[in-house]
Amino acid sequence: MESTVPDAFERMWADLAPVGRSAVSGGYFRQPFDAAERELAVWFEEQCGARGLRVERDDFGNVVGWWDVGSGPAVLTGSHLDSVLDGGAYDGPLGVVSALAAIDLLRSRGVVPSRPVGVSVFVEEEGSRFGLACLGSRLAAGAVSWESARSLRDRDGVALGDVVAGGSSALLSSVGTFVELHVEQGRDLVDRGAAIGVASEIWPHGRYRFDFGGAANHAGTTRMEDRRDPMLTYAMTALAANKQARLAGQRATFGRVAVEPNGTNAVPSRVTAWLDARCSTDEALTSLVEAVTTQAADRAGRDGTSLDVVAESVSGAVTFSPDLAAAVAADHEGGDWPIIPTAAGHDAGILSSAGIPTAMLFVRNPTGVSHSPEEHASTPDCLVGVSALADTLERLTR
Amino acid sequence: MESTVPDAFERMWADLAPVGRSAVSGGYFRQPFDAAERELAVWFEEQCGARGLRVERDDFGNVVGWWDVGSGPAVLTGSHLDSVLDGGAYDGPLGVVSALAAIDLLRSRGVVPSRPVGVSVFVEEEGSRFGLACLGSRLAAGAVSWESARSLRDRDGVALGDVVAGGSSALLSSVGTFVELHVEQGRDLVDRGAAIGVASEIWPHGRYRFDFGGAANHAGTTRMEDRRDPMLTYAMTALAANKQARLAGQRATFGRVAVEPNGTNAVPSRVTAWLDARCSTDEALTSLVEAVTTQAADRAGRDGTSLDVVAESVSGAVTFSPDLAAAVAADHEGGDWPIIPTAAGHDAGILSSAGIPTAMLFVRNPTGVSHSPEEHASTPDCLVGVSALADTLERLTR
Repeated sequence: MESTVPDAFERMWADLAPVGRSAVSGGYFRQPFDAAERELAVWFEEQCGARGLRVERDDFGNVVGWWDVGSGPAVLTGSHLDSVLDGGAYDGPLGVVSALAAIDLLRSRGVVPSRPVGVSVFVEEEGSRFGLACLGSRLAAGAVSWESARSLRDRDGVALGDVVAGGSSALLSSVGTFVELHVEQGRDLVDRGAAIGVASEIWPHGRYRFDFGGAANHAGTTRMEDRRDPMLTYAMTALAANKQARLAGQRATFGRVAVEPNGTNAVPSRVTAWLDARCSTDEALTSLVEAVTTQAADRAGRDGTSLDVVAESVSGAVTFSPDLAAAVAADHEGGDWPIIPTAAGHDAGILSSAGIPTAMLFVRNPTGVSHSPEEHASTPDCLVGVSALADTLERLTR
Repeated sequence: MESTVPDAFERMWADLAPVGRSAVSGGYFRQPFDAAERELAVWFEEQCGARGLRVERDDFGNVVGWWDVGSGPAVLTGSHLDSVLDGGAYDGPLGVVSALAAIDLLRSRGVVPSRPVGVSVFVEEEGSRFGLACLGSRLAAGAVSWESARSLRDRDGVALGDVVAGGSSALLSSVGTFVELHVEQGRDLVDRGAAIGVASEIWPHGRYRFDFGGAANHAGTTRMEDRRDPMLTYAMTALAANKQARLAGQRATFGRVAVEPNGTNAVPSRVTAWLDARCSTDEALTSLVEAVTTQAADRAGRDGTSLDVVAESVSGAVTFSPDLAAAVAADHEGGDWPIIPTAAGHDAGILSSAGIPTAMLFVRNPTGVSHSPEEHASTPDCLVGVSALADTLERLTR
């Protein structure tokens, strides 16, 4: 690799390091359309400008920097700059920084692509603010309508339509192939001793809001038998979800809870909690959520509480083009890259489902930890990732 | 009762009705030193001024309006104006409004007390902002030092010392007897068919902060067996607390929870939850909290999580002066008022424990519901309360 490319990668990485970082946890708070995330958006456009990439924005906050070269269907690569609440540095930004560095590397190699190459940043990939993951790519791909998305609200009651104009997107109209590089969220590559992997599929997954309603009352004077305490129904449901997922070999998590009025000396009137469920098949996901809902409803009956379950988003199984994955993974120095599945959702899954041939590259994560300040990838592995992405773009634009 | 007194009561009640009321729930948000509660504090001083009561403030935000009459140890009556989060209209304000109306009634009767009479408002009785219930009365009585209280913080990290000057209090120096009128928090009086009751004792009670620590990670990609999820430890602890309290015939509630990072697609790094426990004896309280803590620690061991339990406040049993209670309760038209225990904490308990002879009057609550927008007492019962409080003050100041 040209010596300037690692320098450029590390410089960009250093640019991003302080933005939205919590001094307490070391994690990142980069929620869409908030100050830190907007600073990153401006930074991205500056990086595009410095490389002579033409910036194209859509009405939803998504951006592509175009290398207008060659002709025919474009190859798009990129990821996202938003984070989960208190997230890691790599989930998202690694794909964006690597895409910019891969263009630097192609140019330093003297490669002139036969077709346009774009670097994309989709907003609200994590769904940490408006609740719907891959919101920007869903809107760009037409997988969700603006009419339904505009009224999504954040925790403060602010609607998506209040923070972004909305309308339409032409970003994907000329795209023939999409490639997303992402830090691995798991330890498959560590176990295989490989720095780079290619995605085969994304597990089906969904977010389900469980509203448990009860009756507020005094925590001291209300006899236990007179209560309708939704906290109990929630607590049993959280344990049931964990048990069902373990029994089925799948994944279920209650990571977000809101309690009303949330006072120490009051029985709550309402507990709202979000189930994140992921399974190896669509049928297993349906079955898991049904089992949890049934147990929750049974307990609600015993607690005298109410239960309402709303599927906020459900994403079916995504199988990436096997031919494209094989073409990307084959014939490298040191052998083929492994082709592995993931249980994490990505914009790449949305674009693949929308009919755009899509590939994903994963960069090894030594601990497997993600969605956490502890998330990590080594700089040498990241630079191997840049080189791998450049190789992939070169293959796809020959 | 003089006809002007019910009018004055209802006018004061109408003054308070809109202040800090949520249009959504109909409940009250009157947290200490916030706008709504400060508006009530100003209103109280105006009411004192209109009655020619001399206003005395201490350095903690507590206020007494003095009827400077007679000589010797004063009789103090009053309650609080703050509420729990989304609380009812009666818990606190009923005692303050009734105290002012009782003075009106004594004056309309031509009663001239032989000793000073004060109307008190103590701040942060509920502990809804700084976590320590009866904070104002504890500070005034010297039951907690300013040095330890000043660093108590609210949910936004604001310290008590940042919102109030602190220092000392002389409000109680001349007080010989304290009487607090309060809406009943329970259905004892309904069951007895009595509008008014007198308190015998307050159950021992405490607030305990349970910190469950785990490891943040991706909710999709982290295998169930690789997690250290503090939500599970919390959920089991909430169920265990409920079960232990039911088995022991006591009270235990987890009504407040804080989750970090509280994102749908992340295993939490930390869950903090507050146990409110109340028991008929000090021994039973110790035993209940130990049982819950033991079960929580066992589960933490299995979940790979950490547990830290801090007693934020523990109030031992309060037995109000039996002689005073009997003297207050006896020889009324229609018979003696019933003398009943309560599981709710009150400023009256703090003052009693500080050595001030103290009595409490309860006004019937038709549903027993409290700490809730549904909390209620009928206006006729409230007016009987005013009359009962005036009678009591008259007896105590003869």
